[in-house]
Amino acid sequence: MVQDEKSIVTPWEVSGDLDYAKLIKKFGTKPFDETLTNKLAKLTGGDIHPMIRRGLVFSHRDFDWLLSHIESGGDFALYTGRGPSGDTHLGHLVPWFFTKWLQDKFDVELYFQITDDEKFLYNPQYTYDQTIGYAYKNIEDILAVGFDPEKTKFIIDSQAGPKFRKLATEISKRITFSTVKAIFGYNESTNIGLLYHPAIQAAPCFYPSIIHGRKIPVLIPAGIDQDPYWRATRDIAKKMGYYKPVALHSEFIPGLEKGGKMSSSNPNSTVFTTDTGKVASKKVNRAFTGGRATIEEQKRLGGDPGICNVFSWYRSSFEEDDTALQKRWDDCKNGDLMCGPCKMDLADRVVLFLEMHQSKKEDVADLIESSIIRV
Amino acid sequence: MVQDEKSIVTPWEVSGDLDYAKLIKKFGTKPFDETLTNKLAKLTGGDIHPMIRRGLVFSHRDFDWLLSHIESGGDFALYTGRGPSGDTHLGHLVPWFFTKWLQDKFDVELYFQITDDEKFLYNPQYTYDQTIGYAYKNIEDILAVGFDPEKTKFIIDSQAGPKFRKLATEISKRITFSTVKAIFGYNESTNIGLLYHPAIQAAPCFYPSIIHGRKIPVLIPAGIDQDPYWRATRDIAKKMGYYKPVALHSEFIPGLEKGGKMSSSNPNSTVFTTDTGKVASKKVNRAFTGGRATIEEQKRLGGDPGICNVFSWYRSSFEEDDTALQKRWDDCKNGDLMCGPCKMDLADRVVLFLEMHQSKKEDVADLIESSIIRV
Repeated sequence: MVQDEKSIVTPWEVSGDLDYAKLIKKFGTKPFDETLTNKLAKLTGGDIHPMIRRGLVFSHRDFDWLLSHIESGGDFALYTGRGPSGDTHLGHLVPWFFTKWLQDKFDVELYFQITDDEKFLYNPQYTYDQTIGYAYKNIEDILAVGFDPEKTKFIIDSQAGPKFRKLATEISKRITFSTVKAIFGYNESTNIGLLYHPAIQAAPCFYPSIIHGRKIPVLIPAGIDQDPYWRATRDIAKKMGYYKPVALHSEFIPGLEKGGKMSSSNPNSTVFTTDTGKVASKKVNRAFTGGRATIEEQKRLGGDPGICNVFSWYRSSFEEDDTALQKRWDDCKNGDLMCGPCKMDLADRVVLFLEMHQSKKEDVADLIESSIIRV
Repeated sequence: MVQDEKSIVTPWEVSGDLDYAKLIKKFGTKPFDETLTNKLAKLTGGDIHPMIRRGLVFSHRDFDWLLSHIESGGDFALYTGRGPSGDTHLGHLVPWFFTKWLQDKFDVELYFQITDDEKFLYNPQYTYDQTIGYAYKNIEDILAVGFDPEKTKFIIDSQAGPKFRKLATEISKRITFSTVKAIFGYNESTNIGLLYHPAIQAAPCFYPSIIHGRKIPVLIPAGIDQDPYWRATRDIAKKMGYYKPVALHSEFIPGLEKGGKMSSSNPNSTVFTTDTGKVASKKVNRAFTGGRATIEEQKRLGGDPGICNVFSWYRSSFEEDDTALQKRWDDCKNGDLMCGPCKMDLADRVVLFLEMHQSKKEDVADLIESSIIRV
């Protein structure tokens, strides 16, 4: 975990100026480099997701090993998760679309953990009924992303079945207070539910092996803030007879206002999947950009897309076409594209996306119950 | 918990010379006195279980309050448990027969927790499959005691349902590491499964209220070694909107050899429900008694039933008739009853009991599945 004067990156809070090179060093992971991209491309028929092409997937653990494993005929399962503390926002969706791409390319199972227990245990203000309620609402958003309903299984912690809990109990025997103190900064005032939680979050790493009765590695696409959980898990994997989990870390999506990642705690900076088009447009139109003080100045000097949240949104999710993205960068730099139309264009795309997403949510409502795994 | 030079009384170990007056003081409970017996008798039509008549139920928490609650028309549920670490022995059965008496007298539900998780988490040598296996074997023994199958529900921790686990999670938010450190002596090397376990063991105190949707107090007949769990629970009960659990503590049943309570770890001192009559007889015939060095001496000076394990067994379970028990005491004291025939008589009763119990176990095998609660 990183907690210094410039930024905080823990499983419960991500804020401040994020220096990804520093995060790689602090978390002890490896940078995602071109060799990996090329190795991956060989397995996907040359297709590479924009988040990889654009360097948004910046770090990994053992992804090179996993690619070799796949090359030699091995399979794997995907594992990611969501802490249901409120409505879903677009910052949540971005890595899920990347996860869907991985599922599509490799035709593999996805185990999606909903940590309603952790959200309840960590936040004094929540009742358990609240976070359980969010769990079901969030699953609607996740399914609307378009995961293969036959191969996507939700583990809602509060509803997990006996096989899952047996595994978590077995893991919990191998992790001591010292370990969770060192990894998560827990102390004497930490509640015992939270102390136990790392076992619950480690369990999906080995759960596919239990379900299928043979060793299956998992690939975890997630924020690097969640990495401490996999570190604890990697330490015990071999001793328990499982593969170490493999991880891919993607950058956090910035909010619309200046500074920090998109976060539910700052609604003006965040577009929720439940927002109306009107509300979303308003938020986008108030976004922090790399524009100049006046139009005249911007025409003369050009804008700075490198610090612009609107450009960040295009880059991460609202412009799939690399050429068009490059043109937008150049036009901004050259003073040919002003912030007004650029924001309006983004707002239109966001509104269109929200309409499609909200309609898909209605379509998937019937799939929720059957996609929850309770064994 | 008590851990001094003379004795150890913790949830995981009871050994040494047990001084019950001291245990009451150390655990901060109240002695079970005649006023209570009389108050209880009013509610049972004058019937009082031998374990109360004979002072084997020596301590309580709030039992006086519970009796008043019952007097004014309130109901309650019974809650007790078993840590499935091996075969059941007669020392386990004694308090269960007392619990059955309470169930019969008050016609109430019994929630019987099987802590297969705790036994696994505490003992390095066990696999979880082992303790889960013992759980089912032990339930056979428990049902053979004759509990009302309609009103007896087993909570096997590894199989507990979502309502139970939700409650445990809610409890776990209110207990910190400091608390379990102070109450159970846990430290930095304790595994996180064990740190969490007090929430699991507290949950049955409030579970009947969840099941029935109204506040129902529980009465816990158990060894005083388990009291730390209820202390932690009592601290949070009111804040969570439940009644504090009420407890009755009974003496530990001694083994056949000299010193300590009957324990699976000393098979020669212990009669298991799986023992054949021949094996059980042999064990009883080697029991430690209050006899003299020679028959001549014993006839002259009399024996000492006060230190005799054989007499203890009659007192706790194998002689229900107070007059017959008193006669056995007097005959021993007067040198009229020698150890040989007294042991042989006990062995006969033990063998008869085992035969009946083993046959009842066959009868109840079909009831196991339906008596496990999984909600």
